[in-house]
Amino acid sequence: MDTKIESGAAAATRYFSEKRVPIAEALRSLPSRESGGLSLVPGGGTESLERIAEFCLRGKMIRGCLVFLGAEAADADGDTGLIDCAVAMELFQAGLLAHDDIMDRDETRRGAPTIHARYAVEAEARYAAEALAREEGVASHNPADSLHIGEALGICLGDLCYFEGFASLSRAIVGKPRGPEILGLCSSVLAEVAVAQMSDVRWGGSHAEVREEEILAMYRCKTARYSFSLPLAVGAFAVSGDLAEALMGLGDDLGILFQIRDDELGLYGSAGATGKGVGSDLREGKKTLLRARLLAAAPEGERDLLTRAFSAGERGEGELEADIAYIRRLADELGVARSIDEMKARAEDRARAIIRDLPLPRTETREVFEGLVEWVTRREK
Amino acid sequence: MDTKIESGAAAATRYFSEKRVPIAEALRSLPSRESGGLSLVPGGGTESLERIAEFCLRGKMIRGCLVFLGAEAADADGDTGLIDCAVAMELFQAGLLAHDDIMDRDETRRGAPTIHARYAVEAEARYAAEALAREEGVASHNPADSLHIGEALGICLGDLCYFEGFASLSRAIVGKPRGPEILGLCSSVLAEVAVAQMSDVRWGGSHAEVREEEILAMYRCKTARYSFSLPLAVGAFAVSGDLAEALMGLGDDLGILFQIRDDELGLYGSAGATGKGVGSDLREGKKTLLRARLLAAAPEGERDLLTRAFSAGERGEGELEADIAYIRRLADELGVARSIDEMKARAEDRARAIIRDLPLPRTETREVFEGLVEWVTRREK
Repeated sequence: MDTKIESGAAAATRYFSEKRVPIAEALRSLPSRESGGLSLVPGGGTESLERIAEFCLRGKMIRGCLVFLGAEAADADGDTGLIDCAVAMELFQAGLLAHDDIMDRDETRRGAPTIHARYAVEAEARYAAEALAREEGVASHNPADSLHIGEALGICLGDLCYFEGFASLSRAIVGKPRGPEILGLCSSVLAEVAVAQMSDVRWGGSHAEVREEEILAMYRCKTARYSFSLPLAVGAFAVSGDLAEALMGLGDDLGILFQIRDDELGLYGSAGATGKGVGSDLREGKKTLLRARLLAAAPEGERDLLTRAFSAGERGEGELEADIAYIRRLADELGVARSIDEMKARAEDRARAIIRDLPLPRTETREVFEGLVEWVTRREK
Repeated sequence: MDTKIESGAAAATRYFSEKRVPIAEALRSLPSRESGGLSLVPGGGTESLERIAEFCLRGKMIRGCLVFLGAEAADADGDTGLIDCAVAMELFQAGLLAHDDIMDRDETRRGAPTIHARYAVEAEARYAAEALAREEGVASHNPADSLHIGEALGICLGDLCYFEGFASLSRAIVGKPRGPEILGLCSSVLAEVAVAQMSDVRWGGSHAEVREEEILAMYRCKTARYSFSLPLAVGAFAVSGDLAEALMGLGDDLGILFQIRDDELGLYGSAGATGKGVGSDLREGKKTLLRARLLAAAPEGERDLLTRAFSAGERGEGELEADIAYIRRLADELGVARSIDEMKARAEDRARAIIRDLPLPRTETREVFEGLVEWVTRREK
């Protein structure tokens, strides 16, 4: 995936590259497969499904790949509906992102316009064309209306992603004794994500600082359980379910490691590699672990400067760089950088211990799990 | 439900009153039942689930009741997870309405503030309280931000409704051979609704008129298949599934009848009974069958007046009454009212024929189905 990646992660990144292929293929065929019922709907569903597939294909598809890994851990043998489970994970993620981007007012994602931003531009063009056809001025409508239509269509497309995701799950669980558990786990973890997202929205709209425990709980729900524990456990359940609990626990640690790395990339990361701009978390006023620990540790005299450096909003490139350098210096001086590194080390140790104890049927599977720990901890994008 | 209801519908309205009781009870217990996983999420999920339950309880719960009716048609015997299916139907509906109200910018629903409108008011109050605490002026923020936060939380709550709905389904399908079919039917019909809703949004944002076929396809997806066919078939599948196809067909006709009656109430209906204002569909510029037929049938000279009467937007009470009277007069003069009545009569005949052929195990069940035809056709609210 990335030439700069630590060689220890190679087994995982190779695995992802390999498993992405059938997932991508299944996503690409989504529009044609679904043309049955949806084609009767006014407007048809094909165009929407193409948009969804395209959006999914631009992602890393880690969640889909982890379904396969969870199944291999449980000794998958032959076709067990894994591809439909993997596609479901990617569709759920697409739906959540489509909605998140509306809430965060983000206009780019994965190096392209967000779902609602693209709809808004299209609505604007349609208004203009209609106005021309009526020989009125192009300015005969309120541009806020185009944005609202873009957001409305983005809400619908996100909903469609969820429903197509559950439709994919329904195909996956045919003949599976643990089918209801797969459905139950997916829906309850997604419910946790929805509630966690509400806290995120409230935090964004408030001047109050958020405590470390709340931030860690957020990391656990929105990243660990949802992005790691869930797909690994779904893969395991698709086979037998015996390993599901151990994999849920492993996902917790992998997720925390992934999220802390995400925060590092969101603050210091390069725009080219991540698709986000440097300091994007800063501009969005994201409540991160680093921020909570720094604000708790900072002496009275630094508190105001720090709050200002962390405050949401656009700023010039020079100012942004200065804010980031200031945060980095303070994190070193106050020992916050070290304390987070120590937390990472503990999570990494726990993850490695769980993997050591997993009764894995194949050495290669163990190498992929070990590479995964390396990747979530040290990835460059 | 309503003293003015035609006596023929009595068996159906009695049935609804009876079945609402256990559904309402299950919805009321939702917040406490779910406190396991969601209580770990930052912010907790209990408050959100209480909001959802309260919102559901203000509805008619027709979809939930129809699950029981579908199961009775298929000769349900004992506990077959029906209540969890019924709760799922109500939660799906709540999620769709929460999202629809954001798209339509509606501020009241079921006689109370809509989900996002209530969140927006709460966000506004929180901003004001925080500004007071910081001893700043109350006007230190942009009110549009409160609306945006309200909409963002409304999107999340809608998502939570869907996920809780699927969680409820997962409980319902334990040990059911046709469980995957239930899940597949729910998700594919919901996908149709999402796509249909996108057309609805596009129609609202366009000056172009919509053809009758498109409007009827919309009625079929958003009302017939989703609100009638789906819950009836889910109930049947929960028992055996043999009747599911016939009930899907019956749902089609019931839905068309319901939607045409809904249009009549949305144009001429009284505010007290329906919870919507008179002419609410007019103010929203809703693309109805009546509108499409009138615009197609109107002579050149009336076309402009008619388009203006149907154009979206607020207007004075007197003007609204005049517009409605004009539409009613033209619908009579052009024979459009009669043509729609004939369409209703045909759908009613088809529905009664399907019911006659259903191999129903009990006479009382047949009476409820017959009452249902009466109710969808002539209900007063």
